[in-house]
Amino acid sequence: MQIIEVNTKSRPSKVYCGEGAAEKFSELYAGCDAFVVTDANVARLYAARIGELFPHAPVCVVPAGERSKNRNTLFKILDAMFAAQLHRSSVVVALGGGVIGDMAGLAAALYMRGTRLVQVPTTLLAQVDSSVGGKTAIDYAGVKNAVGAFYQPETVLCDPAFLHTLPPREVKCGLGEVLKTGILDAAIGEKLWESRERLSDLSYLSELAADCIRFKARIVAEDERESGARRCLNLGHTTGHALELAYGRRSHGEYVLIGMWLESFIAEREGVCTPAHAQYVRDTVALVQPRIPVFKDARACVKYALLDKKNSARGAVSLTLSAGKGEWKVLALSAEKYADYLGMLEGGR
Amino acid sequence: MQIIEVNTKSRPSKVYCGEGAAEKFSELYAGCDAFVVTDANVARLYAARIGELFPHAPVCVVPAGERSKNRNTLFKILDAMFAAQLHRSSVVVALGGGVIGDMAGLAAALYMRGTRLVQVPTTLLAQVDSSVGGKTAIDYAGVKNAVGAFYQPETVLCDPAFLHTLPPREVKCGLGEVLKTGILDAAIGEKLWESRERLSDLSYLSELAADCIRFKARIVAEDERESGARRCLNLGHTTGHALELAYGRRSHGEYVLIGMWLESFIAEREGVCTPAHAQYVRDTVALVQPRIPVFKDARACVKYALLDKKNSARGAVSLTLSAGKGEWKVLALSAEKYADYLGMLEGGR
Repeated sequence: MQIIEVNTKSRPSKVYCGEGAAEKFSELYAGCDAFVVTDANVARLYAARIGELFPHAPVCVVPAGERSKNRNTLFKILDAMFAAQLHRSSVVVALGGGVIGDMAGLAAALYMRGTRLVQVPTTLLAQVDSSVGGKTAIDYAGVKNAVGAFYQPETVLCDPAFLHTLPPREVKCGLGEVLKTGILDAAIGEKLWESRERLSDLSYLSELAADCIRFKARIVAEDERESGARRCLNLGHTTGHALELAYGRRSHGEYVLIGMWLESFIAEREGVCTPAHAQYVRDTVALVQPRIPVFKDARACVKYALLDKKNSARGAVSLTLSAGKGEWKVLALSAEKYADYLGMLEGGR
Repeated sequence: MQIIEVNTKSRPSKVYCGEGAAEKFSELYAGCDAFVVTDANVARLYAARIGELFPHAPVCVVPAGERSKNRNTLFKILDAMFAAQLHRSSVVVALGGGVIGDMAGLAAALYMRGTRLVQVPTTLLAQVDSSVGGKTAIDYAGVKNAVGAFYQPETVLCDPAFLHTLPPREVKCGLGEVLKTGILDAAIGEKLWESRERLSDLSYLSELAADCIRFKARIVAEDERESGARRCLNLGHTTGHALELAYGRRSHGEYVLIGMWLESFIAEREGVCTPAHAQYVRDTVALVQPRIPVFKDARACVKYALLDKKNSARGAVSLTLSAGKGEWKVLALSAEKYADYLGMLEGGR
């Protein structure tokens, strides 16, 4: 078992990675009032396991999927917390993928101005990315993660045992964030290329997950609230989120891959990186996403990108671009110019 | 003009106290996108002034009063923020009393995981207490401030000019928190007694407000999230909030005064303070609240106290009690015992 510390200013977190991580809960939180939030899929697949890991804890089950990441579900979780008469010293356990982590995390942040929070991510995406770093949110007003808080979990338990029930779509989703980390960090990138044959091997992926978490822990400790270094983690995400809002259907990770692909052209043509580096980014994307789909009316997605949290001026779209191995830059493009680039996704390139 | 620094871990605040504080806004935030949240009373009384102080800023007006401090109003403010396409670097101005400060503060905390926040308190209560320290919330599920966040404003502008339009009820409300600070801090208590003839003089009160803010700034810097020293600020509040939820009508400050009165008997009889100190607390309360009203069925309020955020165990009520001048203690009482004490408010004592 590896233990990774995330030393943020607001509250330090400990991430336990490896076989048996979930069982650490009973040891770390003996005698605490626990309250589990999970989704219908996890509740069905792991009914008996939940009872073993969190005996006596009330379990709040919400519908699975990004569509339930909204205001109504958030307040249903809060209602269940009030009904259970939780206190600030109660421990909210977010057991699930990114959607559960985001919503249960926000509910924990808001209930009585904050209870204790433990993330138990069950998807590769949540293990490599969303469960670490304290971002919590719901989608609102047509914007991804529009209403939320930075709220650090005390503990994250990344147990590979949960990954065996993941459908391939979910594995690919997590791989999107793994590749993103590989583009941001030269050493992880090299490891990825060396072991590219093993990217469908789940036990190898959970080893890579620990590398990704270690990288993210370093970034988040430096810049918890995304005003500096943390912006690097948005690579591919401006375009990815806009496509996700416009088209739905595919997974978050796949949209991030497509976003990184498109944004490599932007970086190249706007002079942020060399053509060779842009090609390296696209080749890395192709390890998992060899074919970029065609999106009808992709230019229209500019309206979603304009609402993105990462923008800092009206009428302009902020993008985090890969400038070289281990290097990145934030660039603001006018809406018109960005729409032209989105046009590349309409095919005929 | 006095400038008081509140050095919390999450974000330092500066409090400007004195004539002309509100005008500092244009100097401190020149060139920023501002967005004003206020209530119908303030909007009516200060329509022209708002235009002068915050030119070009959209103004979101919500209904006045504690009853509007709910989920619907919170999301109406968020809707207006999305409609105005605010960014994280936009500045939300909470212009009003405690209700506006709490709700606009929470909206600022949640929008895109946090925008910049400036508190411009217009009531004595908000100036001496709620605008400083970063507590934000809405009432929910029958519990005061049940859903909220700790979110520090960058700047607080306490301008006595706003106090001249306050109805007497609101002045008394603020005095409740001033007296609470006087009981917690020996020097402020002494000053209060020496100047007890001047407690209806608004310009003297704004001088006292600066003393109260300086005291609170010290406490909040030591313990931002209310796990230690900050609990002293809850003096009178467990009983005060329970009565407020059960009976409404009177102001928050008046309920806090009544709470301190009742809790002085609890402190005395539970051996937390001497009878002489308990009498001193009651005499201080009487400076502003010479007569304690009779509450029918006061014992029934125990159910509200049991839901209080400050409790840490089920079936018990946590109270912050004054143990001596400048001294305090948290005591947990069983629900039955606390209900017996509440019975003293039913008259016939």
